[in-house]
Amino acid sequence: MSESSERQRHLIIDEVRRLLAADDTADIVAFVEPLHPSDLADVLEHLEDDERLRVLELIPAPLASDSLAEMEEEEHPAELLAQMEPERIAELFEELADDDAADLIGELEPEEQERVLESVADSDELRELLEYPEDSAGGIMTRELVSVRSTANATEAIDELREHASDREDFYTVFVVDRDARLRGVVTLRDLILASPSTSITELLEDPVAVVPVDMDQEEVGRILSRYNLASIGVVDDEGRLVGRITFDDVIDVVEAETTEDILRFASVSDEEQLRGTTAGAIRSRLPWLAVNTITLSLAALVVWAYKDTIEQLAILAAVMPVIAGLGGNAGTQALAVTIRRIAIAEETAAERWSAVWKELIVGLVNGLLIGGLVALVALALPDTDPVFGGVVMIAMWGNLVVASTLGAFFPIVLERSGIDPAVASSIFVTTFTDLFGFLLLLGLASSFLL
Amino acid sequence: MSESSERQRHLIIDEVRRLLAADDTADIVAFVEPLHPSDLADVLEHLEDDERLRVLELIPAPLASDSLAEMEEEEHPAELLAQMEPERIAELFEELADDDAADLIGELEPEEQERVLESVADSDELRELLEYPEDSAGGIMTRELVSVRSTANATEAIDELREHASDREDFYTVFVVDRDARLRGVVTLRDLILASPSTSITELLEDPVAVVPVDMDQEEVGRILSRYNLASIGVVDDEGRLVGRITFDDVIDVVEAETTEDILRFASVSDEEQLRGTTAGAIRSRLPWLAVNTITLSLAALVVWAYKDTIEQLAILAAVMPVIAGLGGNAGTQALAVTIRRIAIAEETAAERWSAVWKELIVGLVNGLLIGGLVALVALALPDTDPVFGGVVMIAMWGNLVVASTLGAFFPIVLERSGIDPAVASSIFVTTFTDLFGFLLLLGLASSFLL
Repeated sequence: MSESSERQRHLIIDEVRRLLAADDTADIVAFVEPLHPSDLADVLEHLEDDERLRVLELIPAPLASDSLAEMEEEEHPAELLAQMEPERIAELFEELADDDAADLIGELEPEEQERVLESVADSDELRELLEYPEDSAGGIMTRELVSVRSTANATEAIDELREHASDREDFYTVFVVDRDARLRGVVTLRDLILASPSTSITELLEDPVAVVPVDMDQEEVGRILSRYNLASIGVVDDEGRLVGRITFDDVIDVVEAETTEDILRFASVSDEEQLRGTTAGAIRSRLPWLAVNTITLSLAALVVWAYKDTIEQLAILAAVMPVIAGLGGNAGTQALAVTIRRIAIAEETAAERWSAVWKELIVGLVNGLLIGGLVALVALALPDTDPVFGGVVMIAMWGNLVVASTLGAFFPIVLERSGIDPAVASSIFVTTFTDLFGFLLLLGLASSFLL
Repeated sequence: MSESSERQRHLIIDEVRRLLAADDTADIVAFVEPLHPSDLADVLEHLEDDERLRVLELIPAPLASDSLAEMEEEEHPAELLAQMEPERIAELFEELADDDAADLIGELEPEEQERVLESVADSDELRELLEYPEDSAGGIMTRELVSVRSTANATEAIDELREHASDREDFYTVFVVDRDARLRGVVTLRDLILASPSTSITELLEDPVAVVPVDMDQEEVGRILSRYNLASIGVVDDEGRLVGRITFDDVIDVVEAETTEDILRFASVSDEEQLRGTTAGAIRSRLPWLAVNTITLSLAALVVWAYKDTIEQLAILAAVMPVIAGLGGNAGTQALAVTIRRIAIAEETAAERWSAVWKELIVGLVNGLLIGGLVALVALALPDTDPVFGGVVMIAMWGNLVVASTLGAFFPIVLERSGIDPAVASSIFVTTFTDLFGFLLLLGLASSFLL
């Protein structure tokens, strides 16, 4: 968000607040009506619950429903909806696209869902959409299809669209289906417009480069749409019948949500946590991983405990420990981040993927030697230290960085092969293991060569 | 990538390899021609350099140029291009969209760029595109505009498009400009098709919800396009003249690249590093941060060094240190990840953003108390420890988690306010600071209460 647009946004929010406080209904509506639904959604997100409800009840239904659909899930637009009168709910649903309607209802508790659905006219269709898992193709598709007969020519197809598709919002592609609703092909609006009027639809028809089954994971749908630069993609059932479509804007939303999930998982935060959620939610989402980490770190503590006598005699080792642990963690996290991202986006054979482990081994060898040397120099600069101490520190640091770097690539690849998201808690296990190994090396070498 | 499509991909790659080895030119072309350019790009990425070049020289120019444009930047498609004969280069550029052409040339060294540009017909236009920074709106836009006169009606506009826009690939919106090329508004293809034939363009014309200046950062362009669910957006110069357009597929690519950048920066990897780049590149991208971290961790080592006598008398403290450091790092990273992501996507006022710090303080207080208690219990289970030792460990752990959690939110917000990417190396500084503070607390308390 650039600074000037941020300033504008705040001016708009302040003005809506002022009008709400002054309680001048006509002015509120007049001020809010020209806003784009996405901008109004943004304003609503900054108001209190009762203020939101008032604005949404005052303004025309099309703007109210679009703004609700554009609000962040974390701001619970569905709960606002559930607080409205049944007539207003019916009015808003009349205006909502079916996928947005299903997303909103899907956020509610089952009893609330039932209550809202009772107010809605086409509730059967919504109920069907609600049955698909939220993160599947079915969960993000719209059933509001745009299709023409395969026997038409370009002019007839355009006429057909004028007659039947004027209530369809944003579409970019026309799907052509046979009598059994099986997808025959697609025609882009561009091709339809550019074709000479008498061209038959079958000539314009392209094999769809990809269709997605209704149960495909949304992340995979995003990858396909992005791979083939498609503005929209058809969704088919088990028998190849066209049941819905997914457009690029759904996919951009998916990419954004998946990115958040990946970064949070990487940092050992449960992906249930909402970025602007409650404090209690944040506590619950993080505590389990901290508890797991307490147990894993206790293993590292046990290693140190085993060398208690060595440390009593040479307390400087305790000062070197955090450097070993910190740098091992850092190098491991670097290798982890590169490997996790590589797994997420690069399309590779197993051999290519495993080659990452060799690469990280060499990175660890080189960087370990250089950083080990640097740490040894720092250690030798301390008073009363002998060259053997420098050597021990250097070898421990070197070995630790080699293990950290190699493990940072190895661990997520193994997790992915086992069908586990490679980001989940990788960093806890890699950093604990490097602590453990680094201390063992440092204290083991020290007790052999320095005492 | 689902398993079955991954298997298909490998079969295709193996077959191309076999045909190349058998050296049967006609078969290679016949097998490769029906592939989608994105799929062929994928095949090329798995071949050796000389094999890639052979395939690209054999196949028709449109397929070759589209596949080059779809190859990952890391695979250096531009270098393949630079190795071709001038006539072939000219032929391929004839087929390339100008933004793809500029991206390819932009990857080359200046002398190479010059050599390639000499083979290209419209090199002046390309030179102009090349002047925009790679990550600006100008750097990702195409100048291949689709526009109509504002005086036309729907039928005339469609005729105009048939006449002038048939060489324009993938477009979804028609831009309407005045005589000075200033953007008057946009008409979506959907509206153009659905309008009755005699409707005048001015009636269909919508104010563009957003236009972007040519120097806007690409990440910001992505945010706007995604905010308003636009398939394409106009790019204007200082005087409001339409100079190009950006489509949703460019934005999906940007989002993917920026996600990689964010995750790598978060893990202290230079964003110059390519996921499948060379080992030398990986070494160079990570070494500087490891060196910085060596220095910051030396401060933590100094704290421990200052309490050398305490540790000599009570070596068990050295065993508690890695638990304190590890959990502090973990809690700090959790708060960091949530805050960095929140800054990246949530549109908030300054007050809302600062409220994250308070939230994290409370998370730290609660989780610190619980985890501190757990660690104290583990510590007390060791032989020969007294309750005061348990108390010291608990308070040190608690204080450390409070600081880690709070700092994890505070640090990136301050960085962002100062105009620095909040992800850059945040984790190095937060983990070092929590090490330092945690050790000070543990060893300070121990020397006061346990000796």
